Amino acid sequence: MKHIGVLTSGGDSPGMNACIRAVVRTGLDLGMEVTGIRRGYAGLIAGEMEPMDARSVGGIIQRAGTILQTSRCEEFKTLAGRREALRKLNEYGIEGLVVIGGDGSLRGALELHRMGFPTIGVPASIDNDIWGTDMAIGTDTALNTALDAIDKIKETASSHGRAFLVEVMGRNRGYLALMTGIAGGAEVVLIPEKEMPLERVAEILEQAYIKGKAHALVVIAEGAKYKTSEVAAYLQREEVGFEVRTTILGHVQRGGAPSAFDRLLATRMGVAAVQQLAQGASGVMVGLVGNRIETIGLEEVTKRSKGLDLAFYDMAEVLAK
Amino acid sequence: MKHIGVLTSGGDSPGMNACIRAVVRTGLDLGMEVTGIRRGYAGLIAGEMEPMDARSVGGIIQRAGTILQTSRCEEFKTLAGRREALRKLNEYGIEGLVVIGGDGSLRGALELHRMGFPTIGVPASIDNDIWGTDMAIGTDTALNTALDAIDKIKETASSHGRAFLVEVMGRNRGYLALMTGIAGGAEVVLIPEKEMPLERVAEILEQAYIKGKAHALVVIAEGAKYKTSEVAAYLQREEVGFEVRTTILGHVQRGGAPSAFDRLLATRMGVAAVQQLAQGASGVMVGLVGNRIETIGLEEVTKRSKGLDLAFYDMAEVLAK
Amino acid sequence: MKHIGVLTSGGDSPGMNACIRAVVRTGLDLGMEVTGIRRGYAGLIAGEMEPMDARSVGGIIQRAGTILQTSRCEEFKTLAGRREALRKLNEYGIEGLVVIGGDGSLRGALELHRMGFPTIGVPASIDNDIWGTDMAIGTDTALNTALDAIDKIKETASSHGRAFLVEVMGRNRGYLALMTGIAGGAEVVLIPEKEMPLERVAEILEQAYIKGKAHALVVIAEGAKYKTSEVAAYLQREEVGFEVRTTILGHVQRGGAPSAFDRLLATRMGVAAVQQLAQGASGVMVGLVGNRIETIGLEEVTKRSKGLDLAFYDMAEVLAK
Amino acid sequence: MKHIGVLTSGGDSPGMNACIRAVVRTGLDLGMEVTGIRRGYAGLIAGEMEPMDARSVGGIIQRAGTILQTSRCEEFKTLAGRREALRKLNEYGIEGLVVIGGDGSLRGALELHRMGFPTIGVPASIDNDIWGTDMAIGTDTALNTALDAIDKIKETASSHGRAFLVEVMGRNRGYLALMTGIAGGAEVVLIPEKEMPLERVAEILEQAYIKGKAHALVVIAEGAKYKTSEVAAYLQREEVGFEVRTTILGHVQRGGAPSAFDRLLATRMGVAAVQQLAQGASGVMVGLVGNRIETIGLEEVTKRSKGLDLAFYDMAEVLAK
Repeated sequence: MKHIGVLTSGGDSPGMNACIRAVVRTGLDLGMEVTGIRRGYAGLIAGEMEPMDARSVGGIIQRAGTILQTSRCEEFKTLAGRREALRKLNEYGIEGLVVIGGDGSLRGALELHRMGFPTIGVPASIDNDIWGTDMAIGTDTALNTALDAIDKIKETASSHGRAFLVEVMGRNRGYLALMTGIAGGAEVVLIPEKEMPLERVAEILEQAYIKGKAHALVVIAEGAKYKTSEVAAYLQREEVGFEVRTTILGHVQRGGAPSAFDRLLATRMGVAAVQQLAQGASGVMVGLVGNRIETIGLEEVTKRSKGLDLAFYDMAEVLAK
Repeated sequence: MKHIGVLTSGGDSPGMNACIRAVVRTGLDLGMEVTGIRRGYAGLIAGEMEPMDARSVGGIIQRAGTILQTSRCEEFKTLAGRREALRKLNEYGIEGLVVIGGDGSLRGALELHRMGFPTIGVPASIDNDIWGTDMAIGTDTALNTALDAIDKIKETASSHGRAFLVEVMGRNRGYLALMTGIAGGAEVVLIPEKEMPLERVAEILEQAYIKGKAHALVVIAEGAKYKTSEVAAYLQREEVGFEVRTTILGHVQRGGAPSAFDRLLATRMGVAAVQQLAQGASGVMVGLVGNRIETIGLEEVTKRSKGLDLAFYDMAEVLAK
Repeated sequence: MKHIGVLTSGGDSPGMNACIRAVVRTGLDLGMEVTGIRRGYAGLIAGEMEPMDARSVGGIIQRAGTILQTSRCEEFKTLAGRREALRKLNEYGIEGLVVIGGDGSLRGALELHRMGFPTIGVPASIDNDIWGTDMAIGTDTALNTALDAIDKIKETASSHGRAFLVEVMGRNRGYLALMTGIAGGAEVVLIPEKEMPLERVAEILEQAYIKGKAHALVVIAEGAKYKTSEVAAYLQREEVGFEVRTTILGHVQRGGAPSAFDRLLATRMGVAAVQQLAQGASGVMVGLVGNRIETIGLEEVTKRSKGLDLAFYDMAEVLAK
Repeated sequence: MKHIGVLTSGGDSPGMNACIRAVVRTGLDLGMEVTGIRRGYAGLIAGEMEPMDARSVGGIIQRAGTILQTSRCEEFKTLAGRREALRKLNEYGIEGLVVIGGDGSLRGALELHRMGFPTIGVPASIDNDIWGTDMAIGTDTALNTALDAIDKIKETASSHGRAFLVEVMGRNRGYLALMTGIAGGAEVVLIPEKEMPLERVAEILEQAYIKGKAHALVVIAEGAKYKTSEVAAYLQREEVGFEVRTTILGHVQRGGAPSAFDRLLATRMGVAAVQQLAQGASGVMVGLVGNRIETIGLEEVTKRSKGLDLAFYDMAEVLAK
């Protein structure tokens, strides 16, 4: 393999740049040419290519976002779109591709592999919802960003004796909310994977109030059964003792200098992805299993649904007391 | 004066603790007894007093919020409530009071002064909306917190080529939004003090898109004419080129370790407030004027409305180009 | 087991408080009494005990350091000292002990176990030098703190075209330096586990200068063969192109709000340690293996020496090009 | 004036980029051409010019350092060097110059003015040692960075019951040390402007130890009479109760995203500098006086020496008790 391409696709997550850097420099070290493809599959179809050298990825390891930019692309979901993509890869002489992104992006990578094009996936998602890797690129940074916001909110909450509802990202998964809740010392965590009736939420807050806690914290996953506004309305109606306030953290969670963990993970995954291509692999994703980088078939990755270890949920309950 | 009290009231703002510390240690240094009054005027009426010594304010200078807690108090707005407050001050032998808080809190301080009780006000508000001081305690920290969030949002915005609407606090004033907008490099700032039609907002974003900017940023004051959701809906309808996303920063802006500026300002104001009491002053607020701490009558403070220097607004427009 | 004690010992590391909190609340949840022992083994011998309830560990999960304080204790290394410690544990009716600390502290825990006292170790060390756990409490936060400093230094380095030597902690191990070096994009990493001649360092920097890099970064472990000042003197003499500057990060690396990773790790380990005591275990340490918490004999922990995976070192070299 | 140049010179300070951005965009708005001159006076002499447009200063407002880079230049101190600089300015058709930098850089600006070339100075220095401005660009950020480090150090200091000596920058001035000391709650501050005998330092720490303080903090200006190592050796010899540790913050203080204050100050100064050139001014510096931007002759700026208000020093002493 003499020439590889790299693209980022889907929602951006902190550490993507560290991964691009690792792909480029590992490729160059192995004597390959490396082409950066802009704006994910959309840019691939449009032929937005730029040759990368060691300098073009200098000074980016500490930046969130992706210098290659990203997009969601409907056209690539059609056969015609994918055919056009292949044509462009051939036109530029690219012989292998590294796709950095989430669920949908990896499904795209699998399609290219099925069409015979050597493709390796790298999991990047602040939601940590990808089967086959203990952690995806960006999750650790998003956790820290959410936690930093929660630490700030707790200070004002204590001063007023308030209960705060804080909504964090995670799409239809509760990983981010649950881990943020444990690390932030939340009284209640509401996640899609485990339903809690609103009466129970009110009861816990009321107990916290009676025990004399200075504030209370409820972390709500964006995909939880009850919308944050519903929870707020219910708690206000029930008069749990604390005044209730709401904050939706939003896109802040995608930004911020990537954490050490994410830079290291992204770097290791980028290196491994290129090594896989060099060894002739295709149709696999590199994932973190324990503390090793391993490969797993994209077929399996895209079919299976990553669960949440609910032992953590029980732990959160005990520790909130 | 042998015995003073100190309370924090209204919305909390970072630096209040640094001010409490300065009041306590300056009082002790002048040979006074110092009593901390919990939960603002509500705690004053309820007699929630605790004697303060040098140690009781150790390790708090770097913490947001207020160790004395705070509240909003309806009862104090009645004559009966204020009479009860006076009674409590006398009961505990307190001869002078330092009130740290915003607009409403300072109005309360003025009332106590009018009833003959020596009272000094200290301006604390993340909104910087208090007449008689260039900066209130907490504004600088809130600015930095909002800015940090905006820096994060810009990274993800660039990766996707998006326009972000970011709503910041400020009640019915635009100071926080305007300064955050300038320091954050916003394309548009929407504030109560200066109306901009939505067509103009759309036009600016469209121009930015055409010029090839990687993203666009609109900072919206919570008190601006159009609600953030209205602006978002309008821009989506108008198709300005960028996809539009919204973030409401919320109560995060009240937290975070106070900045150097706020710790120094709060410290200087706390020292000055006690010195004023020691010199027999009452009914005044200590304020920052240029780089000096001066006093100004609470009468004037509570009557006048602080404007916004719109030269900054014009500057923002030039710099966004 | 009806009554357990908990102490922190040796150098402090961020996350110790989160672990104390987990120990206390898990103990209470299991119906145990929990006693906090101040200042490590020194306080144990001196009988500095305080009963802990759920509130006494409220609001500490986000604080670095340890509310129980810590110390190094020579007396405990003597038989007389340990006998006195046992006497105190019995005097207070404590039936099991959780020891949170590094190498030396765990050796102390092993001694207590050998004397028949049920004792569980929890690994806490910013150096990540403890056998039997992939990560110790505090390492991830220290990494992030060092990285944050390096990001700042790179900005000024770029503006001046300078080479910076940054010394990080780690005692006689290179983990912190190597991981910081990779995540910070260092040109060279000097660690105890792998010697690099100074001529080679000079050569690499000179190459970087010739290639036109805006700055160069050398991360040096405090335990590396050449002292930072020696390296600086050598590079200045050799005139590598860049001007050379030095920064020793120092104790800053022990502070800072613990990262999400460390709060979660510390929490899980604290819970597991108490569960071990409840199940009658003793003489073991709880460790992170892959992504599970497992136990390992303190005998083995204190005898074996944790190595460094030098594949990371090779990776750092490739990526720095 | 149709064409202006801008350069940064001397030590870099956070906010320089915000100032460059303001100069460029204000110049363009006034219909001027704007040329960026790289590496300060050295690059001016060498003719390292690049035309700037609105995009070339996009995305830099939040970055420390200077995209134009900086240097110290011996050649410019000679008449021949300055003559060469003038020649280059004429060669490129530049009619006016904005110089962003510290003391020495402003002296250079004065020389150019004296040679008849329209030149405006902008004060940038983390030491805040420039006459004619209340604050220089970068000082507020450096203060916050030093403070953040001190907050971290205090956490570990408390856990061990230690006294920490922290050396901060400031060249031969104590501004940074004194303000950091007040905002950080230091027991002692050692600055060039006010001598304190080492016996007194030992006495204060001993008193703090006896009073039961959990830790003690001594902030030392790099220009103070006694070197930090001397102070440490003395205190260790005197056995003040606390164990003593030392940290030298170093170049970290020059990095970090500029604070809101510095971005706003830099922006206002950049705008004002170009307006001054447009109005035909030369030989002046723009400075912050109270809360207004004013001009002051470079003659006066470079002759006068900025003092330190020692009332702050006395305040620090009272508050440390």
